Amino acid sequence: MSLFKPILMSVLLCVSVSAHTDSSAPPTIAVIKKDSLTQSDGSASSFSGSVLVTQLFPAKNPSRVSGGLVTFPPGARSAWHTHPLGQTLVITAGTGWVQEWDGKKQEMKAGDIVTIPPGVKHWHGAAATTSVSHIAIQEAVDGNNVQWMEKVTDEQYGN
Amino acid sequence: MSLFKPILMSVLLCVSVSAHTDSSAPPTIAVIKKDSLTQSDGSASSFSGSVLVTQLFPAKNPSRVSGGLVTFPPGARSAWHTHPLGQTLVITAGTGWVQEWDGKKQEMKAGDIVTIPPGVKHWHGAAATTSVSHIAIQEAVDGNNVQWMEKVTDEQYGN
Repeated sequence: MSLFKPILMSVLLCVSVSAHTDSSAPPTIAVIKKDSLTQSDGSASSFSGSVLVTQLFPAKNPSRVSGGLVTFPPGARSAWHTHPLGQTLVITAGTGWVQEWDGKKQEMKAGDIVTIPPGVKHWHGAAATTSVSHIAIQEAVDGNNVQWMEKVTDEQYGN
Repeated sequence: MSLFKPILMSVLLCVSVSAHTDSSAPPTIAVIKKDSLTQSDGSASSFSGSVLVTQLFPAKNPSRVSGGLVTFPPGARSAWHTHPLGQTLVITAGTGWVQEWDGKKQEMKAGDIVTIPPGVKHWHGAAATTSVSHIAIQEAVDGNNVQWMEKVTDEQYGN
């Protein structure tokens, strides 16, 4: 029996690899478990503070929409930026702020929805003393869904 | 002074109305408060059971993506359907099931992500003894983001 085991394993492995690389197989529904989602720190050039980004789903052709869960501790925020097709935030926890260029800070709380039109320069993040988490949903044009700009200064953030 | 007050008020009112109906004004960021979101019952032709649908955000040109929060009590589910550009579910609470035609039921739990490719016939909903809530995110083609089909029978649901 011990002689056949490696051969059997090799055959099974080949069948398995073949099944997974058959590009003619129709795409199927995938359930991605919470613990297998990818987390990363928001880059220092695009965020101020220790921002945690969990990628929920990438844009997969022919879809152009992607989503991520972003958590900001008190005082943390994005840099100024725009989105070519806009962005929607679904606030999932806490209280934060969103502000457009030449506009006033607006409060956003758990359960609220924030709609950001295409091309509107803005930032979003936590309030000064409370954390906030939101799902960010945006669509890409030619693979690009954001244009990053300068960081939000402490003076801009405090006003 | 009392003679001028109504005139002043009228002038201010006109200016205010004018400002809000100026279609040349650039679009601005809106925070939609949780309590002002629209809730409705899932239609009897598209759902089995008492399904609650909260519209989070509609597709607004040039965006084509919309989102809704859907809550299914135990045993409730959608009818069979497809999406022209696919759909992503972000499970926000509870435990439910998703199944594609000729496939097995898959469990989906709070925090999981479900990706449904374009054109794949499927249903999703609660498990038999637990409720589930999910955010559903989908893109439209020519204004249409779903093709509804027959209801899921008790036999199909129980298998």
